[in-house]
Amino acid sequence: MSRVFLDYAAITPIDKKVAQEMEKAQKFWANPSSLHQEGEIAKRVLEEARIKIARILHCKANEIFFTSGGTESLNLAIFGVVFKYKKSNSKIPHIITSTIEHPAVLEPIKHLLKNKEVEVSFISPNEKGLISPESIKKEIKENTVLVVIQHGNNEIGTIQPIRKIKEVIENFKLKIENSSRAYLLVDACQSVLYENISLESLGADLLVLDGIKMYGPRGVGILAVRHSVPIESIVFGGGQEGGLRSGTENVPGAVGLAKALEIATEMREKESARLTKLRDYAIAKILKPARLASESVAGGEISQLSLNGGLENRLPNNINICLSHFAKASRDESNKLDSEFLVIKLDTLGFAVSAASACHTLSLENGSYVIESLGNKNCGSSSLRITLGRSTKKSDLDKFISALKKIVHR
Amino acid sequence: MSRVFLDYAAITPIDKKVAQEMEKAQKFWANPSSLHQEGEIAKRVLEEARIKIARILHCKANEIFFTSGGTESLNLAIFGVVFKYKKSNSKIPHIITSTIEHPAVLEPIKHLLKNKEVEVSFISPNEKGLISPESIKKEIKENTVLVVIQHGNNEIGTIQPIRKIKEVIENFKLKIENSSRAYLLVDACQSVLYENISLESLGADLLVLDGIKMYGPRGVGILAVRHSVPIESIVFGGGQEGGLRSGTENVPGAVGLAKALEIATEMREKESARLTKLRDYAIAKILKPARLASESVAGGEISQLSLNGGLENRLPNNINICLSHFAKASRDESNKLDSEFLVIKLDTLGFAVSAASACHTLSLENGSYVIESLGNKNCGSSSLRITLGRSTKKSDLDKFISALKKIVHR
Repeated sequence: MSRVFLDYAAITPIDKKVAQEMEKAQKFWANPSSLHQEGEIAKRVLEEARIKIARILHCKANEIFFTSGGTESLNLAIFGVVFKYKKSNSKIPHIITSTIEHPAVLEPIKHLLKNKEVEVSFISPNEKGLISPESIKKEIKENTVLVVIQHGNNEIGTIQPIRKIKEVIENFKLKIENSSRAYLLVDACQSVLYENISLESLGADLLVLDGIKMYGPRGVGILAVRHSVPIESIVFGGGQEGGLRSGTENVPGAVGLAKALEIATEMREKESARLTKLRDYAIAKILKPARLASESVAGGEISQLSLNGGLENRLPNNINICLSHFAKASRDESNKLDSEFLVIKLDTLGFAVSAASACHTLSLENGSYVIESLGNKNCGSSSLRITLGRSTKKSDLDKFISALKKIVHR
Repeated sequence: MSRVFLDYAAITPIDKKVAQEMEKAQKFWANPSSLHQEGEIAKRVLEEARIKIARILHCKANEIFFTSGGTESLNLAIFGVVFKYKKSNSKIPHIITSTIEHPAVLEPIKHLLKNKEVEVSFISPNEKGLISPESIKKEIKENTVLVVIQHGNNEIGTIQPIRKIKEVIENFKLKIENSSRAYLLVDACQSVLYENISLESLGADLLVLDGIKMYGPRGVGILAVRHSVPIESIVFGGGQEGGLRSGTENVPGAVGLAKALEIATEMREKESARLTKLRDYAIAKILKPARLASESVAGGEISQLSLNGGLENRLPNNINICLSHFAKASRDESNKLDSEFLVIKLDTLGFAVSAASACHTLSLENGSYVIESLGNKNCGSSSLRITLGRSTKKSDLDKFISALKKIVHR
């Protein structure tokens, strides 16, 4: 049975051209920190990769730091900025973030909070999944060191108004004398394939990317940090990556990441348009007319389904639907039509989708905190995330929708 | 011009069989945390790699944690044990380590020391580079949480008496009531190719390996942690790797590391014997008779050279020679025959060797702290590390020795 993979927000396969570049780069296997020719060549290959990435992200090459992935990058950004701040300030640092960030943002922040190292304002999104710049304006204050907002959400695909959030921060800084702080950290892991996420266009001070989310290498990520941002290491050793991230550099990994970013940038416009069309086709077919979870209008090919998050400002590859009506209806008989049941049932029918994020499946019993943040508690544990990718065709979605119909109209 | 690479302690190329296994594993590209079939298969592949590694290291599969390399593993081990200890103990934790550890051990420990989070006993080696178990016995006390000793040194190749150090720790624990602490952390990155470094044989509570030092994948390492060791995360997020190391798992990386460890284990005895013979041949040819840097006997094909570290208890692939006599002699004329000059000069003649460790070249002006620890200050900045690998042949060493002769007898 041929399977249909619709879980590209969890991970993407490695692009063949990326794999080829990495294989070629294996001949530059020496340690880039070595003084000899082999080391120098490896260093040059590494730095060429860094330059390519910097050009695409509109920053300087030495503002790009290679890490082991998105999680490490986000932890380094958060801990690195907070600990550096604490060295020269007696006041407790303040962080603004949203309730729908990835666990790799929320968990390090909660860890700091538990240890009383920071104070935090958690901003809730509106029912469409959007963080309003106005809400940041209300929370920002003199000791705010970080504003951490995801560019594209990993569960509901909402694209946040990062540029406007940046303006709020800048306006605040203008009012406060000597305030050069309140750095904007943007997690762009999910949106890099579809949006212009250069530091310049977003106004980000720190930016995070992950190879696995962009048809790139596994175990390789980026943290871009503007020179103006005071930051320190969280892992210590040989002092690689300008002293910020110790550990022997992964040359083929860096080469693969640069190639993946190049391909993503080349494909961005066309692929975004193609997937937006496919996404909207599928949403219309499922929901007809497309509705928000918060609205309770009936209709659509599968009645009583609703979309989690707004249709506008949404990643082209993200569909997230709430089936709480069916969950409720079935609760009396089998108590089973929840997210996990749906994922497993669809899996047996040949479709790979997910309930929340892949990370979040580790503690699925709690439902999706992202979807619950939208205000509809019932949807948290009875939603499906369907995410499209480069291989997704219209026929895949047609097959998926018929399978979904069968399950909910059983 | 065909080049001779003699810097395998800095890094090893990836074994072709390892690369092939990793390429094959690329088809299991799904996120191992996903609930669907693709995710489950990826998870199974990941866990099979973990089981293979656990069998070789004589521990349980869930005592193996994948990281991004040796540096991260060592940082996680040190910070993770210290921070966990501090949660339930008001007394400041005490660490015992040696002055010749890798920067990935010394730097995190110095960071903790600077922040007054620990107290540390730094043990100096004897002139042969050995850490005596007796010196650990003198320093160990009730609040000792970690004894951190490298199995095989990365600069001078000394193999430490880990098993005897473990006995010292165990004997101390027997004397102190309720003392289950003082965990033994062993950095086995350099010795895995040549020595049995299973947790059982060493008596290690925590063990660190790195793919790049064992003809394995780049950006992948292992931290093995016995169940009995209380440890916490340093990076937070999705809760992968049993909650200890968040970040999407690198499946091909884990597969590659398991394969590299299997190959290393299969080849260990034969390759150790082959390289020991080559090493001793080269040392004899250079030094005839082999001497310690601390002795000042003349002789050998190149007179006035001496070996840094003892010939016994030495990694089969490590040669480290002091040329301080020549450095001193040349100081008057060109002041140039130091480590850096030698490495660069040999490089132009077609030989890749190193001064200290690759990491250490980043701050070479200070000389090698490892070699200085042996008691001969002059050797610190005028020594050469020559490390052999799977491709090294006798003829490579002959060529190298003639080149070295030319330089020092110029």
